[in-house]
Amino acid sequence: MNFDRIAEYRKTFPSKQQVIGQTPDQGVRDMLQHLDQAGIDTAFDRFDAQKPHCAFGLAGTCCRICNMGPCKITEKSPKGVCGADANVIVARNILRWVAAGVAAHGARGREVLLTLKKAASGDINLPLLGSEKIVATAKAFGIYAEDKSISQLAEQLADLLLEDMSRTVPATHRTIAAMAPPERIETWSRLDIIPVSSYHEVFEALHRTGTGTDGDWENLMKQLLRCGLAFSWNSVVGPSIAADCLYGPPKRSQIETNFASIKQEYVNIALHGHSPVLPSALVQASRDPELIEMAKAHGAAGIRLYGICCSGLSSLYRYGEVHPLSNALGAELIMGTGALDAWVADLQDIYPAIMDVAACFHTKVITTSDSCRLPGAVHIAFDHQHANMDQVIHQAGEIVKMAIQNYPRRHNQNIYVPSVSIEAEVGFSIENIAESFGGLDKLAEHVKSGKIKGIVNLVGCNNPKVVYEQAIVQVADILLANDIIILTNGCASFPLLKLGYCSRKALAKAGSGLNEILRAGNLPPVWHMGECLDNARASGLFRALADKSGQPIKNMPVAFASPEWSNEKGVGAALSFRLMGVNSYHCIPAPVLGSDKVADFFAKDTQDLLGSVMVVLPEPKALGEKIVKDIEHKRNVLGWNN
Amino acid sequence: MNFDRIAEYRKTFPSKQQVIGQTPDQGVRDMLQHLDQAGIDTAFDRFDAQKPHCAFGLAGTCCRICNMGPCKITEKSPKGVCGADANVIVARNILRWVAAGVAAHGARGREVLLTLKKAASGDINLPLLGSEKIVATAKAFGIYAEDKSISQLAEQLADLLLEDMSRTVPATHRTIAAMAPPERIETWSRLDIIPVSSYHEVFEALHRTGTGTDGDWENLMKQLLRCGLAFSWNSVVGPSIAADCLYGPPKRSQIETNFASIKQEYVNIALHGHSPVLPSALVQASRDPELIEMAKAHGAAGIRLYGICCSGLSSLYRYGEVHPLSNALGAELIMGTGALDAWVADLQDIYPAIMDVAACFHTKVITTSDSCRLPGAVHIAFDHQHANMDQVIHQAGEIVKMAIQNYPRRHNQNIYVPSVSIEAEVGFSIENIAESFGGLDKLAEHVKSGKIKGIVNLVGCNNPKVVYEQAIVQVADILLANDIIILTNGCASFPLLKLGYCSRKALAKAGSGLNEILRAGNLPPVWHMGECLDNARASGLFRALADKSGQPIKNMPVAFASPEWSNEKGVGAALSFRLMGVNSYHCIPAPVLGSDKVADFFAKDTQDLLGSVMVVLPEPKALGEKIVKDIEHKRNVLGWNN
Repeated sequence: MNFDRIAEYRKTFPSKQQVIGQTPDQGVRDMLQHLDQAGIDTAFDRFDAQKPHCAFGLAGTCCRICNMGPCKITEKSPKGVCGADANVIVARNILRWVAAGVAAHGARGREVLLTLKKAASGDINLPLLGSEKIVATAKAFGIYAEDKSISQLAEQLADLLLEDMSRTVPATHRTIAAMAPPERIETWSRLDIIPVSSYHEVFEALHRTGTGTDGDWENLMKQLLRCGLAFSWNSVVGPSIAADCLYGPPKRSQIETNFASIKQEYVNIALHGHSPVLPSALVQASRDPELIEMAKAHGAAGIRLYGICCSGLSSLYRYGEVHPLSNALGAELIMGTGALDAWVADLQDIYPAIMDVAACFHTKVITTSDSCRLPGAVHIAFDHQHANMDQVIHQAGEIVKMAIQNYPRRHNQNIYVPSVSIEAEVGFSIENIAESFGGLDKLAEHVKSGKIKGIVNLVGCNNPKVVYEQAIVQVADILLANDIIILTNGCASFPLLKLGYCSRKALAKAGSGLNEILRAGNLPPVWHMGECLDNARASGLFRALADKSGQPIKNMPVAFASPEWSNEKGVGAALSFRLMGVNSYHCIPAPVLGSDKVADFFAKDTQDLLGSVMVVLPEPKALGEKIVKDIEHKRNVLGWNN
Repeated sequence: MNFDRIAEYRKTFPSKQQVIGQTPDQGVRDMLQHLDQAGIDTAFDRFDAQKPHCAFGLAGTCCRICNMGPCKITEKSPKGVCGADANVIVARNILRWVAAGVAAHGARGREVLLTLKKAASGDINLPLLGSEKIVATAKAFGIYAEDKSISQLAEQLADLLLEDMSRTVPATHRTIAAMAPPERIETWSRLDIIPVSSYHEVFEALHRTGTGTDGDWENLMKQLLRCGLAFSWNSVVGPSIAADCLYGPPKRSQIETNFASIKQEYVNIALHGHSPVLPSALVQASRDPELIEMAKAHGAAGIRLYGICCSGLSSLYRYGEVHPLSNALGAELIMGTGALDAWVADLQDIYPAIMDVAACFHTKVITTSDSCRLPGAVHIAFDHQHANMDQVIHQAGEIVKMAIQNYPRRHNQNIYVPSVSIEAEVGFSIENIAESFGGLDKLAEHVKSGKIKGIVNLVGCNNPKVVYEQAIVQVADILLANDIIILTNGCASFPLLKLGYCSRKALAKAGSGLNEILRAGNLPPVWHMGECLDNARASGLFRALADKSGQPIKNMPVAFASPEWSNEKGVGAALSFRLMGVNSYHCIPAPVLGSDKVADFFAKDTQDLLGSVMVVLPEPKALGEKIVKDIEHKRNVLGWNN
């Protein structure tokens, strides 16, 4: 391990004061300063307190996989007690991250699959709003028959997706066989990385990384690729399909976003997390005339919903009227307004710290998943067996009532809401994009002609190792100026929403070719696709355009970028695009720097295996320029720049 | 975290020189000195080089679960970036260990389940040698019918066990429902910790421990208990049953053990690992007259097999003639004899370091599992899909041939074999123990009368944090002197095998009551039950004796001890006994000292929940005395000391 390199790297981490000075959203700057003065800590304070960060952890060369250690790789100790070297240690650590990412997206995906199954079988009283998607997917899976009802098809689909998730006896992976491009299936088969199921590959990843099991970093990387496919097809694509079958397709709409969209005269409820099941019911409950009446009886003008992180976004693109406020890293800032009456936390990226901020206000936190509890929160949830899912409507009603009853307890003198807000367009899908262009062939033609130079999926969580939300915006500016369309979702989409990129007004930032096309289509330059599982929509669009262009995806001028990523799911997200043949771009390195071999595997070796690599450049503008350069190179190879 | 406590703890770690001076087996001492002189490093050198160990890792308060860190808990940083405190961080880390243990035992258990299924369906040509077990288990599971063939019953059983392993839609856990004591099922149901399946709970454990998911250490502990049940019933009991169905029950036999059982005139093959599938075939191949002839043609007297770690032990108790040599931590010492012609490594506890030692000799290492590769080894293995399992007999033949061809390449001048060996008895099972006593009621009566004060399952891996193999022997001496029978298996059983405890001669160490009973039954005082999955036999015996005594297990004078444990599976093993209501005893603490709450959960809180706790005392003799004292207390409460 190159200690100097790690020491240099650590020095680039910004301080909270730098964040306050440089983060691009005025609302965030105001709020950080306000909380600073109020003496309320946030993630940025805690990040500063963690400095200096452990060099072994940053490099990936700390092994805590058995109790003979912890072991670390140094000049004096080039191997752990068991003999594992830096390559094996780094490979095991990153494989466990990817496995955990499969499990995270997978576990919440499973909740949707179970809901679809139960709704289809009539076990819970929910309508199936996506009959077109059900029929189209049933056809793709080869299970369609005219005499089957929509419910029957939906239940069979749910069963197949659940089987692909949990199979232990090896058999065909139905989702991959039905949905993946043949060129990719052939590539993955040749590499022997097609998963048995996501449950199986996660289990196997933990097995392999145990003491004295896989001692070959390359074989560990093979399992990492397998897990990447499980991530993509089982944990992202399957649940994304299921959600559309259950809740219907995304709809384009306009919404007011950022702090000032919080209206103090309303009963304000934040939806924080990732599972769409309860939030969907909460949207219905918030529209219930009786509950609105109850809100009014408590002195409020009505009930208003806000989105933190992902579950708000997916509710928004289906139902409208869930105002997106912040990604996970900024959640404390929203809590810090003091203007939320209930904070409904389902699962993932709900930092325990929100409880400390909530304790300074009247805000009631309600946890709604057995997987995610917070001491001090009210818990109204599905149980571990999901046996009480049929109570979802009732639970949603109880939660809204709790918010209403909490409204009069607000301390108005404690409320601080920065006065920034803006309109944003959301709800893009492959289907409605095709509609906008009168067919995807047209879009493909624009890409080929060079009016649109390429398409980048700009996503990922945030990380205090770079100035909050700055890298995303800096990369976006460069892409747009170079006629590259941006798709976005999840955490990274918040600065783009809040700073006007998801609005037609942002066409001013676009190059002339892009500007011309989008102005004609009445479209913004950043297409907001929803929550982080909606990476499935981005990869689906890439695939559709590749098909229209008669090219494998790996040749296409498209890219994946998650400049500020931080969590385990983020490794899987980038990996799943690389498995499709699409490069991934980041400002934050994964903890693999301690092994040249593993670092090179990501940065170089996969070019031959998959047709893609991971590119890491700490400086956001340099990263943006690199994406543009690589896209130009692809265009040159395709002969599309002639 | 109490840094002083960790600093004190680190100081107790022995040096290699202390190990050479104090480890109880003369052969180990000789070999360590020999390798030291030859300049060949072992785990003990690498352990010394790792000093001082990271205090945060030892305490469990280092968090590397997302890329915002690594975070550590100090006075200046009492929470991670996300707000997770020491309780949450410690709880997440230890839950991930338990989940990995479920996956480790589970993955190799699955190989047996798949083999049973394929053998039963005729997909691979293996006889079903355990028809009595098949019938008995089918009856327990409620699937027996007179008109079903043994094969049909076996396949149905395999399917049920595989379903319990991989289910995602919640339903009855068939193995627990069929096999667990009703008192326990009630306890676990009340705690809501009955697993959906082992795949599911591992997946869910990774999900919960991801960024911003479970922020409640108590809820994390609940998932840890669920995983403990999955460990026990899915990863241990199920596969143990399946192995008996497939390969037949254990048979008692005598075997020569320790270094000098290596006969230099033979083609010598070591079996290292845990899966019984290939080793069973290797035993058959080693008896093939053609191959024996081939060995002779190459100048050898014949073919001889040796057991390292677990797969050798399970082969030994079924087929005899696999000489047990060493646990995982001592494997390099066996490799260091230079007298092995082939070293067949399947999976788990195969330290990568064996390749470095093998490189000093002619020994050919052959890896036989897709999950466990070692750079530089020959790879003859089942593939990831287990599609080529029908080749197992062929593969075994190829491996034996390779060993024979390698025999003439030995460098006799490099060979060093310490001249220690001894006879040991192995192959104890519930069934043959019952036979020895003319029924388990008799054994239960002896326990009640106090001739036998109690029974302790003394198992677990080794750890260089204590003097190698010393704690096990010191605890054993105290237990035997106090009329307590010892059950053993796996790594911890090696010092007991090698130092005469598994022989009737060791009755001299037993107290007078124990001596009288065992002498009458012609039994040794330590009952060797096999490999680490054979914890199922120990817990089965505890349960049978409890039933005979009309008591719940938690009241019985029995205990689990793994004084020197080190790997993730070890946490699960101890936990699974505590879940049965049996205390566990250890010299090595788990990395939970950084959270008083989690440490107390293990050491105190589970008394009320489960009727058992984890006891950690660094000093082995004190640990032995504590076990005796606690057993006496249980006897007093039962009124069995009156």
